Amino acid sequence: MRTLVVDLGDRSYPIHIGNGLISEVNYFKDAIKNKRVIIVTNDTVAPLYLDRLKNTLSDYQVCECILPDGEKFKTLDSFNKIITTMLENSLGRDCTVIALGGGVIGDLAGFAAASYQRGVDFIQVPTTILSQVDSSVGGKTGVNHELGKNMIGAFYQPKTVVIDLNCLKTLPKREISAGLAEVVKYGIIWDYDFFQFLESNISGITELDNKLLEHMIYTCCSIKAEVVHLDEREGGVRALLNLGHTFGHAIESYMGYGVWLHGEAVAAGMVIAANVARLKGFVDATYTERIKSLLEKAGLPVEAPKEMTYKDFLQKMVHDKKVKNGCIRYVIPTQTGKSEVMSDISEDIIVKAIEG
Amino acid sequence: MRTLVVDLGDRSYPIHIGNGLISEVNYFKDAIKNKRVIIVTNDTVAPLYLDRLKNTLSDYQVCECILPDGEKFKTLDSFNKIITTMLENSLGRDCTVIALGGGVIGDLAGFAAASYQRGVDFIQVPTTILSQVDSSVGGKTGVNHELGKNMIGAFYQPKTVVIDLNCLKTLPKREISAGLAEVVKYGIIWDYDFFQFLESNISGITELDNKLLEHMIYTCCSIKAEVVHLDEREGGVRALLNLGHTFGHAIESYMGYGVWLHGEAVAAGMVIAANVARLKGFVDATYTERIKSLLEKAGLPVEAPKEMTYKDFLQKMVHDKKVKNGCIRYVIPTQTGKSEVMSDISEDIIVKAIEG
Repeated sequence: MRTLVVDLGDRSYPIHIGNGLISEVNYFKDAIKNKRVIIVTNDTVAPLYLDRLKNTLSDYQVCECILPDGEKFKTLDSFNKIITTMLENSLGRDCTVIALGGGVIGDLAGFAAASYQRGVDFIQVPTTILSQVDSSVGGKTGVNHELGKNMIGAFYQPKTVVIDLNCLKTLPKREISAGLAEVVKYGIIWDYDFFQFLESNISGITELDNKLLEHMIYTCCSIKAEVVHLDEREGGVRALLNLGHTFGHAIESYMGYGVWLHGEAVAAGMVIAANVARLKGFVDATYTERIKSLLEKAGLPVEAPKEMTYKDFLQKMVHDKKVKNGCIRYVIPTQTGKSEVMSDISEDIIVKAIEG
Repeated sequence: MRTLVVDLGDRSYPIHIGNGLISEVNYFKDAIKNKRVIIVTNDTVAPLYLDRLKNTLSDYQVCECILPDGEKFKTLDSFNKIITTMLENSLGRDCTVIALGGGVIGDLAGFAAASYQRGVDFIQVPTTILSQVDSSVGGKTGVNHELGKNMIGAFYQPKTVVIDLNCLKTLPKREISAGLAEVVKYGIIWDYDFFQFLESNISGITELDNKLLEHMIYTCCSIKAEVVHLDEREGGVRALLNLGHTFGHAIESYMGYGVWLHGEAVAAGMVIAANVARLKGFVDATYTERIKSLLEKAGLPVEAPKEMTYKDFLQKMVHDKKVKNGCIRYVIPTQTGKSEVMSDISEDIIVKAIEG
């Protein structure tokens, strides 16, 4: 069991990582001011873990809000359902919201915590690899609007994050792979040692070896914490976290959301970015092959969908939120364990990189 | 023309107060990063001032969102209308939201600015006395929920506040009086000199003399800035701003929202609080009479509605947001220009204070 502290001055908080943590009240009680708690979860996670968490919190007065599972419910309506449940239970300003679930639940419950009576305490209990390595750090909360993803929200930090590795045991294999795409990303943009660790241990990781998972998730959270600490509100280095995302969002949007999982699209996107790096002469073919091979072993796609042409990519990419003054900004590996944001990549290179 | 700076570290901002300011682009341009601006207003204010402000901002690319006028439209639906308009106009993270209107518009537009893509810039142009002295300082934004007022929102500071005293010329007399209740409040809780200034000049103020209004609004904003600076997130001294509000909310809620204006209910509530102070021996009868007389000259009610009994008050007051651990907390004048928060007031005294 390990604990990492995310250093954000008076908004610093701990991330506890280990086995069976949702059964131990100690990891929760420092972050709960009062007896009143609401657990927000979904109808997939609730049957698996809700009773266990409620049992852990038996000294508290706990109510719950169970939403339908899925990105399409990450809406202002679901947000309002949480708020309504809180009001119906007469929760005051000193209550605590606990998010039990993946990224969608974390984003929804976090935004509800940020907005209820202008802000109450918030604890994250992320139950997927993706949410454990991604939403645990950064403070992004929010909902989708029919005209755009994540268009309504707040930057809001949790009081604590409790990562129970046991929860991964019930995760479908495809979701585990999708989460690993973001894991590999940290190795490519920030930490070559970690990239090598993943190469050496990918089979143990996909078999959910606890020791390996603990190290892996701790390292990802540390890297993200370092990046976010350098750039809390997204001006500079935080953009590196978008490696593979510009191409990936194009794939998700072209194929229809949900057809490719986010992590799958990001994996294919990272391979395209690595191809750009090779074509520009930043890295050699051996490194791009190692990236492809690692992603394949993690169970991820390493090629863009056959049906997508360069033009399909371009059309989707110019609509991306990250476009500044009409320039598409790419995150491109520049050497092992390092990447940079670039916008001066010729069309010719992008076409070749997509072709592979 | 005067400018006050609200000191909140790196979130400090100026409040410009004077005549005709919405016609001068200088007061806006420092707070607008980019060319893209959205003006949020309502269908009462739009015909009066929207074209004038758009004319002032003719160098910018301006879109607008005109909402129906009234507290009952301070909802998540109206908030979503603003967000939708912003998305339909493809506004980016570097856009600016301008609130042109009273408190409802300021709260709605402020919460939209706080939440759009997790936060964009915000300018307040308050057009009523109440919003000029109240919402200009404090950073409270939000919407009502059917189960409670202001239950959803954020603390979010504007980049600048532009107070154009000319806008008060089109305000109904009753609204002017209602705004003056909050003005008198600052004299009672914080500044006896200001209380005396109001006593000497109340007739000129109700006739909207510019010099007097400028001094009055500047002083109210300074006092609120001082109070908020001491207590940005409402733990201590900021509670004094609720003078008259515990009784006032009971009146508003009992009579049905909108039957008594907020300021009218607060005026009657302040008289009850002053009566408590007299009955407790903190102040003499002369002072409470002076408070009543000043409020009357401002065109405000100084007695609770005849139809409300002590029990009606009590029942409403225990449901107030400000109740902590079941104790009703009253703000009571303790001497001229000073008030304190108390919860040990006997039922007997409250009954007598309500009776007058």
